[in-house]
Amino acid sequence: MNKGDKITPWEVSGAIDYSKLIKQFGVSKLDDKLLKRIQKHTGELHLFLRRGIFFAHRDLDWLLDEYEKGNKFFVYTGRAPSGEVHIGHLFPWILCKWLQDKFGAEMWFQFPDEEKFLFKKDLEFEDTEKALNENMLDVIALGFDPKKTHFLIDTKNADIMYKQACRVAKKITFSTVKASFGLNESSNIGSIFYTSMQAVPAFLPSVLKKKKIPCLIPLGIDQDAHFRISRDVIPKLGYDKPALLHNIFLPPLTGMGGKMSSSEGNVAILTTDSPEIVKKKINKYAFSGGRDTIEEHRKKGGNPEVDVSFQYLKMFFEEDDEKLKKIEKDYRSGKLLTGELKKILIDKINEFLKVHQKKRELAKKRVGEFLFKS
Amino acid sequence: MNKGDKITPWEVSGAIDYSKLIKQFGVSKLDDKLLKRIQKHTGELHLFLRRGIFFAHRDLDWLLDEYEKGNKFFVYTGRAPSGEVHIGHLFPWILCKWLQDKFGAEMWFQFPDEEKFLFKKDLEFEDTEKALNENMLDVIALGFDPKKTHFLIDTKNADIMYKQACRVAKKITFSTVKASFGLNESSNIGSIFYTSMQAVPAFLPSVLKKKKIPCLIPLGIDQDAHFRISRDVIPKLGYDKPALLHNIFLPPLTGMGGKMSSSEGNVAILTTDSPEIVKKKINKYAFSGGRDTIEEHRKKGGNPEVDVSFQYLKMFFEEDDEKLKKIEKDYRSGKLLTGELKKILIDKINEFLKVHQKKRELAKKRVGEFLFKS
Repeated sequence: MNKGDKITPWEVSGAIDYSKLIKQFGVSKLDDKLLKRIQKHTGELHLFLRRGIFFAHRDLDWLLDEYEKGNKFFVYTGRAPSGEVHIGHLFPWILCKWLQDKFGAEMWFQFPDEEKFLFKKDLEFEDTEKALNENMLDVIALGFDPKKTHFLIDTKNADIMYKQACRVAKKITFSTVKASFGLNESSNIGSIFYTSMQAVPAFLPSVLKKKKIPCLIPLGIDQDAHFRISRDVIPKLGYDKPALLHNIFLPPLTGMGGKMSSSEGNVAILTTDSPEIVKKKINKYAFSGGRDTIEEHRKKGGNPEVDVSFQYLKMFFEEDDEKLKKIEKDYRSGKLLTGELKKILIDKINEFLKVHQKKRELAKKRVGEFLFKS
Repeated sequence: MNKGDKITPWEVSGAIDYSKLIKQFGVSKLDDKLLKRIQKHTGELHLFLRRGIFFAHRDLDWLLDEYEKGNKFFVYTGRAPSGEVHIGHLFPWILCKWLQDKFGAEMWFQFPDEEKFLFKKDLEFEDTEKALNENMLDVIALGFDPKKTHFLIDTKNADIMYKQACRVAKKITFSTVKASFGLNESSNIGSIFYTSMQAVPAFLPSVLKKKKIPCLIPLGIDQDAHFRISRDVIPKLGYDKPALLHNIFLPPLTGMGGKMSSSEGNVAILTTDSPEIVKKKINKYAFSGGRDTIEEHRKKGGNPEVDVSFQYLKMFFEEDDEKLKKIEKDYRSGKLLTGELKKILIDKINEFLKVHQKKRELAKKRVGEFLFKS
């Protein structure tokens, strides 16, 4: 990690060198061999896999071994309710939906509604409750199968979760969370305990079914710290370590590096943004790899590596590899101007959000189908 | 506290000087004035109040002020399931039952079934579950009104308790629990969080009824540390500090000082002991204040202050003040021999346990009436 960088579940700052993170966190690179092994089962590879959005893993080979032995895995990811959902949040969720479709996987989606309450001084449960109700709509809108999808809300499902969290907690000392999360003696005792709750969905289905079920967790690399700890603990409780699949962050509009954040509204595209707002945000804030003047751009070409609009197309919105290649070529050559590139992205995002927002509206009546009832 | 003494929720050792504890813990003495104020409402005073078993309090005057204003209080106490119930455990429970009768008080009885699991290395949830099922019978056997009594079992009722515990936890730092409970960096994060759960029943009825309801907690003085902390926190959540009423410990059979403990079976009278076992334990282990020979005893008399049998009669089993006075006089004069004194106690305990065990058996079918359902 570069000097000044910080990657914890509660803070991501600085320009992030993902290759260095692989070494630093001790995760494995998601290499071509493993991608081909996935493709053998899925027929195709999701854009997020093809284009390196998911870039690292832990024990994915073991998970595929189990799958090939007929031992189906379930998928677990989550969202700590607070504020609004932006498009960067969708990386693991969309991959989960794809994994559900391709592998017939059960999906356990955790909403740890106490997390942000415990870690943010001025946040109240009224705020997280409100955010929870909104956030659930975004997840449902992605098209999960309600028959195979279970929402776990920490404070509401604590009747089955808290006991399991205590089993985890008994095997984690304060020293460990201090070292892993940068907590200290002034940290509140809820924040100290919290990681135990985040561990639970990784083995809860095994507890409920009374047999070991492999677990795959697609997640932002910033969440790895939780599972570095719980992967040590879970085998001591009699279950298998969950496999992890890590995604990079969608950068903020203002430039590559760091992580999109809802708390800075202008650097994030929210799932509820109107077409006008998307247009305005991209045009005004999306960092450009173009030249200062049209003449210079036509002559020397733009730099797609640092151009946020191009990167969003690559990372998320331009499914078609050929089209993307052409955009890149044209931008690099100077044929495609920054304004034109931005227009392509704006249309793509608005096309995506139009569908998402429609499904999100319909989701309001469907929340009950997804809530786990113990 | 004398050198070598230790009083925490998890350890009580050494000879205990209760007057010193009052100063050390900063609690108030339960004085005659306050006892008379209670008696004004109850007509009589329970033996445990008359004879100093409950010896200290926090804010009992405030509680009575509220009561006199028509603001009824509820009573909260608890039992961390593990092992068997001995007669010393019954002090706060019996007083709670009396308070329910005399003040028409609602009773919230907490079974924090994670506590001993978190604090005892080799204890599993299977053990606490078994103990829970037994321990509940002892509480029910005391005659609580099921319409006014609610059992809260932490792991089972966490769906309403965990969120409230997080509200408490957010306002307690690791430094605080470290100082109050002697926890350290090697303590597990469940044990660090635990005190938050113990705070919850003190204000949960106020949360559920959406109004401030005064709370009275009869409890062993060793539990005071939990409420020294939570009494600071609860007002910050918008509720009143609970009032506390502290009892001394029933000493072990082997001599005054310390606390009866189920883990040392021979120094404790269990609620499930048969008449023969009670007889054997008292005759064999109950420390005697008598003289070495009958002749010497007749001549010089015994010492009831250190005689465990006499103290048990005084603290628990001889309701009648006149009879007790006569026993004391006769023992002090040498008229009553140790064997005779022990016989009186054995009969009294067995009389009590006969009724208790019968009710305990009947309680097996009634557990469901007492469980809180959220």
